[in-house]
Amino acid sequence: MGIVTITLEAVRDIADRALVAAGMNAANRDAVVEVVVDAERDACHSHGLHRIPGYCSAMRSGRVNGQADPKLHDLGPSLLRVDADHGFSALAVKRARPALAEKARATGVAIATLQTANHFHALWHDLEPLAADGLIAMMFVNSRSSVVHPGGHERIYGTNPMAFAWPRPGRNPMVWDMASAAIARGEIEIHRREGKPIPEGWAIDPDGNPTTDAAAGLAGAQLPFGGYKGANIALMVELMAAAFGGNKLSLQVAEDDNGDGGPPDGGNLIMAFDPAAFAGSGQASATETAERLFARILGDGDLRLPSDRRYAARARTPHEGVAVDEAFLADLRGLHGQGKLP
Amino acid sequence: MGIVTITLEAVRDIADRALVAAGMNAANRDAVVEVVVDAERDACHSHGLHRIPGYCSAMRSGRVNGQADPKLHDLGPSLLRVDADHGFSALAVKRARPALAEKARATGVAIATLQTANHFHALWHDLEPLAADGLIAMMFVNSRSSVVHPGGHERIYGTNPMAFAWPRPGRNPMVWDMASAAIARGEIEIHRREGKPIPEGWAIDPDGNPTTDAAAGLAGAQLPFGGYKGANIALMVELMAAAFGGNKLSLQVAEDDNGDGGPPDGGNLIMAFDPAAFAGSGQASATETAERLFARILGDGDLRLPSDRRYAARARTPHEGVAVDEAFLADLRGLHGQGKLP
Repeated sequence: MGIVTITLEAVRDIADRALVAAGMNAANRDAVVEVVVDAERDACHSHGLHRIPGYCSAMRSGRVNGQADPKLHDLGPSLLRVDADHGFSALAVKRARPALAEKARATGVAIATLQTANHFHALWHDLEPLAADGLIAMMFVNSRSSVVHPGGHERIYGTNPMAFAWPRPGRNPMVWDMASAAIARGEIEIHRREGKPIPEGWAIDPDGNPTTDAAAGLAGAQLPFGGYKGANIALMVELMAAAFGGNKLSLQVAEDDNGDGGPPDGGNLIMAFDPAAFAGSGQASATETAERLFARILGDGDLRLPSDRRYAARARTPHEGVAVDEAFLADLRGLHGQGKLP
Repeated sequence: MGIVTITLEAVRDIADRALVAAGMNAANRDAVVEVVVDAERDACHSHGLHRIPGYCSAMRSGRVNGQADPKLHDLGPSLLRVDADHGFSALAVKRARPALAEKARATGVAIATLQTANHFHALWHDLEPLAADGLIAMMFVNSRSSVVHPGGHERIYGTNPMAFAWPRPGRNPMVWDMASAAIARGEIEIHRREGKPIPEGWAIDPDGNPTTDAAAGLAGAQLPFGGYKGANIALMVELMAAAFGGNKLSLQVAEDDNGDGGPPDGGNLIMAFDPAAFAGSGQASATETAERLFARILGDGDLRLPSDRRYAARARTPHEGVAVDEAFLADLRGLHGQGKLP
């Protein structure tokens, strides 16, 4: 078996059937299938079909609720609390966005915390619609601990991704989305599977020493990006998503983990800002100022903005299709209706 | 001449006299002398007396207003605009903090933008009082462009510091404060003065090549910390402080600069959050959750929290005094009343 190319419609169909078979209801499927298809469309394959087995096993173990019915709680003009009902975050975020946007437009800034949510997709997917709707957005997600504080031995932080989105009138929004770990855990797993060494700076072994051995790095702990400065970001993400958001610390998530391969029930915090908040005082509009910055960046050789690679893939994939490993595809199809785990 | 040790009272007196001589009024002096003394107290010498010549020359060139009378403009329940009157940020921040804190406590989150402000001190000084007052705080400051977007040649970003503060009931707050450049520009200047090479990863030369030559790095451009991830932070700081805050881009600040050695008139944006915003839904309090995290970090070998080194110096300096270069001290004293620049 080798690689086959399938259409986005086929991706949608395969994902949906697998999730039906695992017992996810229609409202949750609509949201989850959308994040899977959009990930494949934007060539973010690690967040696409590869996540389907994890979605299914986390429902089958009973840890994540495939029938979740997220509820919004209005805590004031700028605050929203979302009870995600122990479901995947996708539906909770989809329901929260319109209310969050309305609050941000009314008061200039609004914050939503998602509680009892299991985040399993790329953060850009949560923020891009807010920025496409004209808002600035920022997001913090803590996960299960796998990252040390530099100089330490213990797994303290999750890979703790953070994202930032900026609206560009008439264009695709600028969105960045990154782990505060040096590298995604999945990348180290790929290196182990392929028997390749990992670069220095990704991980330490269980004794706390730097390692280039992927298995030792997975047994030990990951490192934050950029030394102590990246650790500051990891700490901020942890405090904002878990402590401020009223959620579990990553080290608690790790202790509670049942190893079913599904997403952590960490914290998800989204902030939205109206770019017009400080306008009207003789200054240029926020988006005009930003466009002058983007023009200078894009005019400097062949630089791109953080999200441009995804948008290029988005234009290409509908024509070119999605390359998928045939054996993996057979596994996914085997999930349909048979209750079989890959 | 060598090194002499002086008391914090002497630091205060020397700073105050120099600023009087340069024409700064009492209200601004109160704020600026406080940041200078507190920097020396916390062993942040690069933000202490070493900044006095820059404060003085920026007033003498007429670029910064030593008589500035910052005015607060209430833009709604969560928004504050501060017209800093082309003064140093210290007084503007001091005046803004109580109003910002009141708004954050009322609505859960509040944002202040400082316009026409010249930021010349450490960001922790702006945030620590908010956190000591029980609030979470975040700050973005853009400056004059000196940092490339990775892969580029042009100076796009300022060193763009960011800071984050977290309240610790009964203890000193956790505050981090870092440039999004790999290193402070002053560090490269020190290496040039001392004829030392700089590590790779700090700067590129004017042709865009990596360099270990401090002078070539200063003539070229600085690099962000942590590769493209650090560049994402630099971009966010730039967009939040300059574009969202209604201020100049760092590249505009650099174009308008008169080389007087004073601070850039970039943007300053401060956000404050009430840690109780999402409490009352059965979750542990934000500060209790955070203390569990801090205890685990501090229990892992001899790790410290980001601000602990400053607090240790703060306990020590009142007894031990501040070491100052005697020649520099003579220069500073020469500033008194003689209109003489060092």
